[in-house]
Amino acid sequence: MRNPQMAPHGDGSGAAEEAAAGGAEKRPVSTIVILIAMQTEALPVVNRFQLVEDQDSLFPKGVPWVRYHGTYKDLNINLIWPGKDPSSGVDSVGTISASLVTYASIQALKPDLIINAGTAGGFKAKGASISDVFLASEVAFHDRRIPIPVFDLYGVGLRPAFSTPNLVKELNLKVGKLSTGDSLDMSQQDEATIFANDATIKDMEGAAIAYVADILKVPAIFVKAVTDIVDGDKPTAEEFLQNLATVTAALDQTVCQVVEFINGKCLSDL
Amino acid sequence: MRNPQMAPHGDGSGAAEEAAAGGAEKRPVSTIVILIAMQTEALPVVNRFQLVEDQDSLFPKGVPWVRYHGTYKDLNINLIWPGKDPSSGVDSVGTISASLVTYASIQALKPDLIINAGTAGGFKAKGASISDVFLASEVAFHDRRIPIPVFDLYGVGLRPAFSTPNLVKELNLKVGKLSTGDSLDMSQQDEATIFANDATIKDMEGAAIAYVADILKVPAIFVKAVTDIVDGDKPTAEEFLQNLATVTAALDQTVCQVVEFINGKCLSDL
Repeated sequence: MRNPQMAPHGDGSGAAEEAAAGGAEKRPVSTIVILIAMQTEALPVVNRFQLVEDQDSLFPKGVPWVRYHGTYKDLNINLIWPGKDPSSGVDSVGTISASLVTYASIQALKPDLIINAGTAGGFKAKGASISDVFLASEVAFHDRRIPIPVFDLYGVGLRPAFSTPNLVKELNLKVGKLSTGDSLDMSQQDEATIFANDATIKDMEGAAIAYVADILKVPAIFVKAVTDIVDGDKPTAEEFLQNLATVTAALDQTVCQVVEFINGKCLSDL
Repeated sequence: MRNPQMAPHGDGSGAAEEAAAGGAEKRPVSTIVILIAMQTEALPVVNRFQLVEDQDSLFPKGVPWVRYHGTYKDLNINLIWPGKDPSSGVDSVGTISASLVTYASIQALKPDLIINAGTAGGFKAKGASISDVFLASEVAFHDRRIPIPVFDLYGVGLRPAFSTPNLVKELNLKVGKLSTGDSLDMSQQDEATIFANDATIKDMEGAAIAYVADILKVPAIFVKAVTDIVDGDKPTAEEFLQNLATVTAALDQTVCQVVEFINGKCLSDL
């Protein structure tokens, strides 16, 4: 028996199916979901667009996920922050929370486009500097090693981001490959996979969001601002915390430019 | 505005909330969800209980998740297998799929209890042998290193499994701590964290399922059969594949005994 509560999401009438069929590409983008893992990264964007926090949550009781929403010109903007972990009180960073909020946001809001914005580590050997803002061309995991044929490819989970050549040109953004893992630091094994992934930037959510967006057929883009140089001299955690506030301002500015550019355009014009 | 499609799950009337409030502990367990990551592990249980695959999926279009369901004595049994990855065709193993199916299964089925069953690596130094079936006492992650105060604890994500002293006694099960990560192999960093987690067994889903079950207040237990000795001489992937079929039979037998034991009992009697 089909669950009546979930039927509307799976009956072929949703935004995901329309986007997949090309329907969403022929009308201007209307609803966007901006996924941001940390409150410090999210609040400048919330303030910039004067978004309002939901009083009654879209999401089930118990989950810490927070939606801020509002309209900007022709866009319905939903900023989703996974919230503070109920057990420890810190931001719910990493791939599991990211995949869950992506899933739940798509089910609840049927967005035309997902924008994952956040901070990232950058590799200077690949041309990254502190405060650079990158758009990811493709995303993959670097901490899912399954050395069995085909499972190895599943583990890496390489996926292209939704292609936005006009956005890149207009905003003059740096473009690079993004590699995702659940650790802030980088082990030798992580490093080898990041190298194999040819990544310029490293985060803790991107590939998980891409995975869920892919199976539910919602286009996703990844805007990542560099807080620390992974192949530099300073310890990652220290450099990350030191630069978080400044880099968040650069991230905020770019996210606003991206939203401004998207307004009034179809997916195929991005 | 509350999303009307999700309201029934968050209005305080669900099984999760009842369980949290102790309501579910005073009546016999009625609905169980058995989460199994691999088809090879799942099918013996499907056959044993003559479960039937859903024709119309409970889940949204695009996701590969499969539900098999049926009744056994007084129990509604739902076995959820995350299915074959749409991109690569292999079983959707690992924490991201596990967390998503846990979330979606709880939303759709409101189970009284989740049983995560599957194969695992075992540490002979902690007393594990091939084909041993363990019940996890607690679960944690070993590949989420975030060396910032409190974030480090969030990363490890230590949680107790739902306590079932009578089940352990009746079935004479081995009990040990479970450590979860997205790699089949074990890096030096993984090993250090697994050691810190005091783990006897190592899998790729448990702690993710525990995390989602915890925030949604559904009790969860973890039944894990040892396919390979992590601190032994043989390469993990080879040993895993070699023992998968045999060990799956041991797993199947224990899962059936667990279900038999649960039937007719309240949560507080497990």
